[in-house]
Amino acid sequence: MGSALRLSIFGESHGCCIGAVLEGVPPGIPLSPEEINRELELRRPGRRLTTPRREEDRVEILSGVYMGYTTGAPLAMLIRNRDVDSSFYEQVVRHRPRPGHADLTARLRSMGFNDYRGGGPFSGRLTAAIVAAGTVAKKIAGLHGVRFYAYLRALGPAECPPPNGSAEDWIQQLQQLREERNKSTVFCHDAEASKEMEQALIEAMKNGDSLGGLVELWILGVPPGLGEPPFDTLDGDLAKAFFAIPGVKAIEFGTGMAIARMRGSEATDNLVLSPEGAPIPTPGHSGGILGGLSTGGPIVARIAFKPTSTIRLPQRTIDWRGLEETEMTGGGRHDPAIAVRAVPVVEAMAALVVADHLLRWLSWRLEHYHRLERGLEAEKENWF
Amino acid sequence: MGSALRLSIFGESHGCCIGAVLEGVPPGIPLSPEEINRELELRRPGRRLTTPRREEDRVEILSGVYMGYTTGAPLAMLIRNRDVDSSFYEQVVRHRPRPGHADLTARLRSMGFNDYRGGGPFSGRLTAAIVAAGTVAKKIAGLHGVRFYAYLRALGPAECPPPNGSAEDWIQQLQQLREERNKSTVFCHDAEASKEMEQALIEAMKNGDSLGGLVELWILGVPPGLGEPPFDTLDGDLAKAFFAIPGVKAIEFGTGMAIARMRGSEATDNLVLSPEGAPIPTPGHSGGILGGLSTGGPIVARIAFKPTSTIRLPQRTIDWRGLEETEMTGGGRHDPAIAVRAVPVVEAMAALVVADHLLRWLSWRLEHYHRLERGLEAEKENWF
Amino acid sequence: MGSALRLSIFGESHGCCIGAVLEGVPPGIPLSPEEINRELELRRPGRRLTTPRREEDRVEILSGVYMGYTTGAPLAMLIRNRDVDSSFYEQVVRHRPRPGHADLTARLRSMGFNDYRGGGPFSGRLTAAIVAAGTVAKKIAGLHGVRFYAYLRALGPAECPPPNGSAEDWIQQLQQLREERNKSTVFCHDAEASKEMEQALIEAMKNGDSLGGLVELWILGVPPGLGEPPFDTLDGDLAKAFFAIPGVKAIEFGTGMAIARMRGSEATDNLVLSPEGAPIPTPGHSGGILGGLSTGGPIVARIAFKPTSTIRLPQRTIDWRGLEETEMTGGGRHDPAIAVRAVPVVEAMAALVVADHLLRWLSWRLEHYHRLERGLEAEKENWF
Amino acid sequence: MGSALRLSIFGESHGCCIGAVLEGVPPGIPLSPEEINRELELRRPGRRLTTPRREEDRVEILSGVYMGYTTGAPLAMLIRNRDVDSSFYEQVVRHRPRPGHADLTARLRSMGFNDYRGGGPFSGRLTAAIVAAGTVAKKIAGLHGVRFYAYLRALGPAECPPPNGSAEDWIQQLQQLREERNKSTVFCHDAEASKEMEQALIEAMKNGDSLGGLVELWILGVPPGLGEPPFDTLDGDLAKAFFAIPGVKAIEFGTGMAIARMRGSEATDNLVLSPEGAPIPTPGHSGGILGGLSTGGPIVARIAFKPTSTIRLPQRTIDWRGLEETEMTGGGRHDPAIAVRAVPVVEAMAALVVADHLLRWLSWRLEHYHRLERGLEAEKENWF
Repeated sequence: MGSALRLSIFGESHGCCIGAVLEGVPPGIPLSPEEINRELELRRPGRRLTTPRREEDRVEILSGVYMGYTTGAPLAMLIRNRDVDSSFYEQVVRHRPRPGHADLTARLRSMGFNDYRGGGPFSGRLTAAIVAAGTVAKKIAGLHGVRFYAYLRALGPAECPPPNGSAEDWIQQLQQLREERNKSTVFCHDAEASKEMEQALIEAMKNGDSLGGLVELWILGVPPGLGEPPFDTLDGDLAKAFFAIPGVKAIEFGTGMAIARMRGSEATDNLVLSPEGAPIPTPGHSGGILGGLSTGGPIVARIAFKPTSTIRLPQRTIDWRGLEETEMTGGGRHDPAIAVRAVPVVEAMAALVVADHLLRWLSWRLEHYHRLERGLEAEKENWF
Repeated sequence: MGSALRLSIFGESHGCCIGAVLEGVPPGIPLSPEEINRELELRRPGRRLTTPRREEDRVEILSGVYMGYTTGAPLAMLIRNRDVDSSFYEQVVRHRPRPGHADLTARLRSMGFNDYRGGGPFSGRLTAAIVAAGTVAKKIAGLHGVRFYAYLRALGPAECPPPNGSAEDWIQQLQQLREERNKSTVFCHDAEASKEMEQALIEAMKNGDSLGGLVELWILGVPPGLGEPPFDTLDGDLAKAFFAIPGVKAIEFGTGMAIARMRGSEATDNLVLSPEGAPIPTPGHSGGILGGLSTGGPIVARIAFKPTSTIRLPQRTIDWRGLEETEMTGGGRHDPAIAVRAVPVVEAMAALVVADHLLRWLSWRLEHYHRLERGLEAEKENWF
Repeated sequence: MGSALRLSIFGESHGCCIGAVLEGVPPGIPLSPEEINRELELRRPGRRLTTPRREEDRVEILSGVYMGYTTGAPLAMLIRNRDVDSSFYEQVVRHRPRPGHADLTARLRSMGFNDYRGGGPFSGRLTAAIVAAGTVAKKIAGLHGVRFYAYLRALGPAECPPPNGSAEDWIQQLQQLREERNKSTVFCHDAEASKEMEQALIEAMKNGDSLGGLVELWILGVPPGLGEPPFDTLDGDLAKAFFAIPGVKAIEFGTGMAIARMRGSEATDNLVLSPEGAPIPTPGHSGGILGGLSTGGPIVARIAFKPTSTIRLPQRTIDWRGLEETEMTGGGRHDPAIAVRAVPVVEAMAALVVADHLLRWLSWRLEHYHRLERGLEAEKENWF
Repeated sequence: MGSALRLSIFGESHGCCIGAVLEGVPPGIPLSPEEINRELELRRPGRRLTTPRREEDRVEILSGVYMGYTTGAPLAMLIRNRDVDSSFYEQVVRHRPRPGHADLTARLRSMGFNDYRGGGPFSGRLTAAIVAAGTVAKKIAGLHGVRFYAYLRALGPAECPPPNGSAEDWIQQLQQLREERNKSTVFCHDAEASKEMEQALIEAMKNGDSLGGLVELWILGVPPGLGEPPFDTLDGDLAKAFFAIPGVKAIEFGTGMAIARMRGSEATDNLVLSPEGAPIPTPGHSGGILGGLSTGGPIVARIAFKPTSTIRLPQRTIDWRGLEETEMTGGGRHDPAIAVRAVPVVEAMAALVVADHLLRWLSWRLEHYHRLERGLEAEKENWF
């Protein structure tokens, strides 16, 4: 994943560990395991209203950092799995793929050789490696003034009121919104909505059921012109990254799906001048991206997560032995709503994509500065 | 775009031509310009209810085909632009970016050197090159039994009733659905809905306005296990490809956005056996993809297109000269609803992604057949 | 080929044309077909001591340039084939692969569907597309002070004396060396050696034979630190690019093959300070590259080209019909020594690789400038 | 590195560990740490005539293997560093880059943030990760009948006589050659030459000097048609991979550099039929590759390694403090000839490249089989 900033992840839910290798990290960025652990802490299992699985999720930096700074060499990170219980998988899932999970497709793809314990490499557990890598990406992007903020916009029936105010207000409030959000058990900064969501979730858990959810993402301070059309568009790369998060079924930018029912006179942003004199599309139907390129305005996306497929109610499935239809009831340990802990993952994925495009874009900029400054002579002399 | 099957496109709306280079095409596939022209005909401008721009859109195969068969060498295709009128762009757009278009972002990205005539490389015109390449991809995928079908599911307020029946029924009806669809001026196979959409569009045009639309895509007959997680998921690669089509703002698979509001007991597919004895998730909330891999069931996606941004009503924009706010009214020639002609483009993009993943997947399969057949001896002998 | 600057080429020797698509070209670079034609002129067939095939080799820029400047969009270029005669190929090569050519392997790879006329896509003819793209790459690299110079170091028995003086001297002499070289029918700046080479070549042609040759390449003014280890090393990427030129059998940097027989005390460069106070390895056994990264000193490489395989003397081959051994005598039109016209191709390939690495490297640099300038505050503020 | 089979490596010479992540490994390949350790044992330091550094080099498989078989998920491997002594580097190299090493260029690339201890990521130590990954690649390629054999062809003045006999003979002798080679302290199967090389090396060590060497590689049983021209040629990808091994300065295939001085009548292989009736170029000037594609004959390459740059004789270098010229004498621990332990690394690199191209090539083959078998109907039915 990525071109200038390239990420590989590895590991399985019930293997010894999970990890990430990040290539193309510029040298000289201060980085400590503590910073990464802080981010990991946000998605760590074992908090209230999440899976009972207890994981410390402490990262070990294997390479790419020396004396507290990145060296520019591949940055490898490792997170050990500690609290593993495969009994349910070895007894049940081995023969009966869990409906709604990758058990079926993973087995077909790997011709029966997949590690099905806890979903193996398809487990949400892998997102810890993404969050770890995202921490580095956030520092690269942050240095250029880019900020990321995701929160739970809806959980089943409960919804968080959309933010009001301008992008400028959002940047002002960012720190406070984050604090509110992190206090919430469901990553929603609105105290009231947070309580409703919590209630809905507890209700669902009581019934042995689970809930879907909607995560909203803001990317603020992105310089205009990021993206590499025709195919490496900024929205396309973001969407592709989000679909790599387990449970995602839909993605929309700005006005999103609703725009299909609108008229051009309603749905088209006007171009106005920001206080700083930069042209900005407003009110933001475009979601901050036009022609696959960032506009300089806030990028707003919403990602729909399906409810956890494993529930404590009976579901129909098949049994590989004899290939016959049968029933099963959810076992193993899991979150009642994957959307909740996906919030920090969405931020991390967004940071990885934006940092990658920032690095690609910077080369054109410097190339341009050089030309401005040396262009005239450069024209004169024989370049060959 | 792509890994085993790689596509590059080039050209500008008002340049001499547009084109595509497709690398990784297997040798021995019969291919004629006529086949490609047939597909191009579907999206060709100048049909009723589309832009008045008249383009013949006849492809010239420059390389990669000999004696009527692909050779395995890069396949280059060229489509000349014939009916070009840049007056509006040179007089107006040069200084005033059109709201809702890439004029603004393209200029910022290219530091003022972009070709803004007709949107340059950001024009929907480029999708003709994608349709041409998609024709080849459809033949590769078609050979393995994969079929693609897209149609206009909604246009502004008008909607086409969702299809009923099973995937098997769809495959049976495919030929007929296509014929109905191609008769429709708005690419909708339902005669009644087609008429409503047409009315809505004429209405909008009367008011100098435009309409957004929703394209639904089916991919039938995809073998299970296609996709390369963690990052090259099948849904992720499809989504990225669709965002490369101008005007796309949202993408959903299966139940899509709505799944965020559902409970696990409603939203999870059960696993049952197909008549052929293959395990299939049903009723299809997953949209035919689980864990980023095809399930073997029908892949269903919906892509939301914004209304054409250029309308004949006044819009606010800025003027680069003096960087001041101003007004403009749409000029140039354009479709009143980009979703309509996007239908064949969605099919082409889907074919390019699926053919790419098919080719990647085939190598694992053959690798596996070899092993099954030679495995035992292979184990015995010293491999090094 | 390439990461930040990506090249695709297409076409066949006896097809309608050949072409190139170059992606990632920064915007704002002045570019005209004339500049490209000037470079093409150097390798154009039909000059003395080369193939009698007459080709005008005039480039048509299809996209990516507007008002005389690159736009940043994909840059497509086309060169038409005019003087095509396929008789020999259709009568002979169709059944009898030419020894030493790709006829055999191309047919096996493409399962019999390859275009064998003139070698199809394996023809040296394709190098015209590389030279065209290289012209753009030279402008990108030239702007940053990088200069490329290749010449014929040896042709069969005849050899050009190695250059003397320092890298500084070479840069001074570059213009003059180029003029001398371009006057020579064999691209050698040394008048005497040039005459010997010419004699050797005429001699070989008299006997219906051909000659191998050695091309030496200098890359001057490369900033230190270019290259992306572990795998995208600068020498590795250069070597890979050179092996894409037909007829290359060996590549060496600096002291090259001979270093295998030396002792460390002889073969290791010392580090000294250049007049400008930059540390430079000298005398240059390393060839200007250490650890896959440029040292800042001159990069010196030598590329060995085999003799043209097609000669007017009988050779043994096989006949596909009945798969039996047989004989053939060279036909078609060809150069008596491919090394001669490879000289401008080597320069173009080197420019494409260096420009690509320059663009990748610039992003790290600017990233670093930003940090230096904003680093302190950046440290203070919360990056997340 | 790689397209269908992708390798990332990480780690530093004096960091906690080194590792590799291999993506695209087909599922169902039996793999145990022991197999990998056997290969690692060959290049393990601490054997006679190599660095005194003692490393156990035992691999830990972190992911991608379940129940003894590969799963198709990313395969991560870790090798801990145990015997680390950085004193010389922290006291000397920190300020004085070692001549002939990447200390200089690494520092310039990373703007001073590189880990210089033991050469950091530029150390030959990293090749252990490549050998580990190569073990898997050898199993993939081995299954298809491809065999790899490398040996020390020359060490300073001493040379091993070239092999005689045909490719068939070589395959017969392979097992025995390997045993002889592995007994030799310098990886040369010829007992006499081995003794000479050993003497030369001991001599050099006595004088505090080091020796360069030449490694010869054979790849046997490669099916014809492997490679992806125009740019991903088989020789190009092999060359690029070899240049990623520290100390490589030149690479040649078949007749190599010498071919530049030859005539076509001497240097061109004839095509004859093998005993099995396959057309084979002979005697093998082409080195088993034509047009960037494998011929089906043995692939023969020679790789030139420079002498270890660190010697116990004084060398000139610069001191970063005050940027002044100074002297230094080699410290740290190192091999007296890097070519010796490079032998297994060359085999591993070759296996990684060939396995990657095998996987890419298999998809075309199966694609073709399908067409042969279903082609007729496929032609008939409407593919769209």
